[in-house]
Amino acid sequence: MLKFLIQTVTLIPGDGIGPEISTAVMKIFEAAKAPIQWEERNVTAIKGPGGRWMIPPEAKESMDKNKIGLKGPLKTPIAAGHPSMNLLLRKTFDLYANVRPCVSIEGYKTPYTDVDLVTIRENTEGEYSGIEHLIVDGVVQSIKLITEEASRRIAEYAFEYARNNQRTSVTAVHKANIMRMSDGLFLRKCREVAENYKDVKFTEMYLDTVCLNMVQDPSQFDVLVMPNLYGDILSDLCAGLIGGLGVTPSGNIGAHGVAIFESVHGTAPDIAGKDLANPTALLLSAVMMLRHMGLHGHAKKIETACFDTIREKKVLTKDLGGNSKCSEFTADICRRVQDMD
Amino acid sequence: MLKFLIQTVTLIPGDGIGPEISTAVMKIFEAAKAPIQWEERNVTAIKGPGGRWMIPPEAKESMDKNKIGLKGPLKTPIAAGHPSMNLLLRKTFDLYANVRPCVSIEGYKTPYTDVDLVTIRENTEGEYSGIEHLIVDGVVQSIKLITEEASRRIAEYAFEYARNNQRTSVTAVHKANIMRMSDGLFLRKCREVAENYKDVKFTEMYLDTVCLNMVQDPSQFDVLVMPNLYGDILSDLCAGLIGGLGVTPSGNIGAHGVAIFESVHGTAPDIAGKDLANPTALLLSAVMMLRHMGLHGHAKKIETACFDTIREKKVLTKDLGGNSKCSEFTADICRRVQDMD
Ligand SMILES: CC(C)[C@H](C(=O)O)[C@@H](O)C(=O)O
Ligand SMILES: CC(C)[C@H](C(=O)O)[C@@H](O)C(=O)O
Repeated sequence: MLKFLIQTVTLIPGDGIGPEISTAVMKIFEAAKAPIQWEERNVTAIKGPGGRWMIPPEAKESMDKNKIGLKGPLKTPIAAGHPSMNLLLRKTFDLYANVRPCVSIEGYKTPYTDVDLVTIRENTEGEYSGIEHLIVDGVVQSIKLITEEASRRIAEYAFEYARNNQRTSVTAVHKANIMRMSDGLFLRKCREVAENYKDVKFTEMYLDTVCLNMVQDPSQFDVLVMPNLYGDILSDLCAGLIGGLGVTPSGNIGAHGVAIFESVHGTAPDIAGKDLANPTALLLSAVMMLRHMGLHGHAKKIETACFDTIREKKVLTKDLGGNSKCSEFTADICRRVQDMD
Repeated sequence: MLKFLIQTVTLIPGDGIGPEISTAVMKIFEAAKAPIQWEERNVTAIKGPGGRWMIPPEAKESMDKNKIGLKGPLKTPIAAGHPSMNLLLRKTFDLYANVRPCVSIEGYKTPYTDVDLVTIRENTEGEYSGIEHLIVDGVVQSIKLITEEASRRIAEYAFEYARNNQRTSVTAVHKANIMRMSDGLFLRKCREVAENYKDVKFTEMYLDTVCLNMVQDPSQFDVLVMPNLYGDILSDLCAGLIGGLGVTPSGNIGAHGVAIFESVHGTAPDIAGKDLANPTALLLSAVMMLRHMGLHGHAKKIETACFDTIREKKVLTKDLGGNSKCSEFTADICRRVQDMD
């Protein structure tokens, strides 16, 4: 057997069902002999100098050192007054590309059978600028910020992704008919970058048209690239097509290999601690992580085992239509992984 | 038979297939003895005093007099330098509510069978403010404008609509977790208005969550109310669920009964003038118009005839899966309407 260098990954188990699904992932990784060592860190918003919200220094240092993180769900209490920790993490490490592959899962029935696409969302600006003003009483403005640099960067990421993942087309999603300057700039950068990737087909489509076509025939789409909010919307829509956030992986990618992979479902406080959670989304995010680290063999093994368990339908958690516990689902995947050796 | 006062409606046939589908609607209205007289007007952007784009005075005067319009598709050439005429019409007549009922059509197969919802979109502000700036080279901002007044007005419209149309719930769609001030204001107004409509159930949901839930189970939704861009997206998504823009009606409603009903599909220049177009969307928009005018009997008759023709599948246009011409489809509906007398 090949020898791999053991790499350390920052693990942020998160809230609610976060710890149980993190345990599930660690067990499966162990069974698969993935050469990963976990460094567990907790993230809770703290107030730094000057009153700015930040993530705890232990978590920051761990990520700075390891560069790669895996993260469970975090509560986002609007009432707490601080920004969503998910957003703060993306910002802190300049994770500019939010990548969500959506692929139909054999054996998990939805109205669609042929979804195989990837949404690539600009993750740092746009409608998420956080800049808002009260103009006069009863009149508020929010600012959508689009820059040439961030637009070019995400467009380049999308085309590189397409090229490196045997995908054939990139669609830029926009509303440049309405937001002519901002979405216009985004679109122009996509067009420019497309010039350098003649091997990848480039198309552009209005966001509303994408939504309409998506629910009519998702198989027509491949890689989609778009500003922040549109990505938030489309990635959830696409997750819905294949069965929801419980089975959809996600990665937040920055420069120089820095990345955090995360399940994007909620913390499910109602079932937390009851061994009922479905770890699939976090597991598939961890599989994305393995690929990002070049550990393709381990990734394939775990992914295959997970899909086999789902396809066989014998050991499924409740949300997947079964009666099994999280630990039983996990054990079934572990067994399959071990059988592959 | 009851006697009805003949009312005049401004007809804007539009571009591409617009004239043929308008003719189809006029024929069917005649067959149904709908007490409507058409005043045809053309809208092409013209430059008014001070260089502001406006609609031609003949069209404006006609609408000012008649208050009610029916409109086919208009080309929206970005290159022409003027704003979309669709938007200019909404603005000129302060048509603040964009109403799109989406109901599954029996016999027209899609992955969904139980869609029965209405999207109500704020039609005058939000991301469609048209205010954009270049901050420095390569940095652009677009302004999303949310006002207390427009938010209250659309929320009130949605609840009134629910109450008057035997609908039981209103869902406010927002991203107030991100745009806390602007979507926050919109949401607050919805909550306030909800207090006055205790007979209607009120819920709130993030836009991304709505999209996800929508493709998983649209039957859970009833009336949805939301800011401008979200309505643009969601209304197209929902149209996709029931078969596309070719079968989806739309109304733009203002104060004091002023309204323009329109098909929201494109001008389909490739099939224009070939007697191949499907007039359903414009026809169902015209049916919405009849209801708006209190002509419920005529509305019901035409709607039933149209759905019967689609359900029977004998005379369908190409996009509906048939081989018939627009004129044949139209004649079939006319025959049914006449048979009902
Ligand atoms: C949690 C929330 C702030 C976040 C977003 O709006 O981006 C989520 O919906 C996502 O897609 O990751
Ligand atoms: C034509 C276009 C400007 C318009 C919009 O974006 O509102 C259309 O998509 C619609 O939904 O009516």
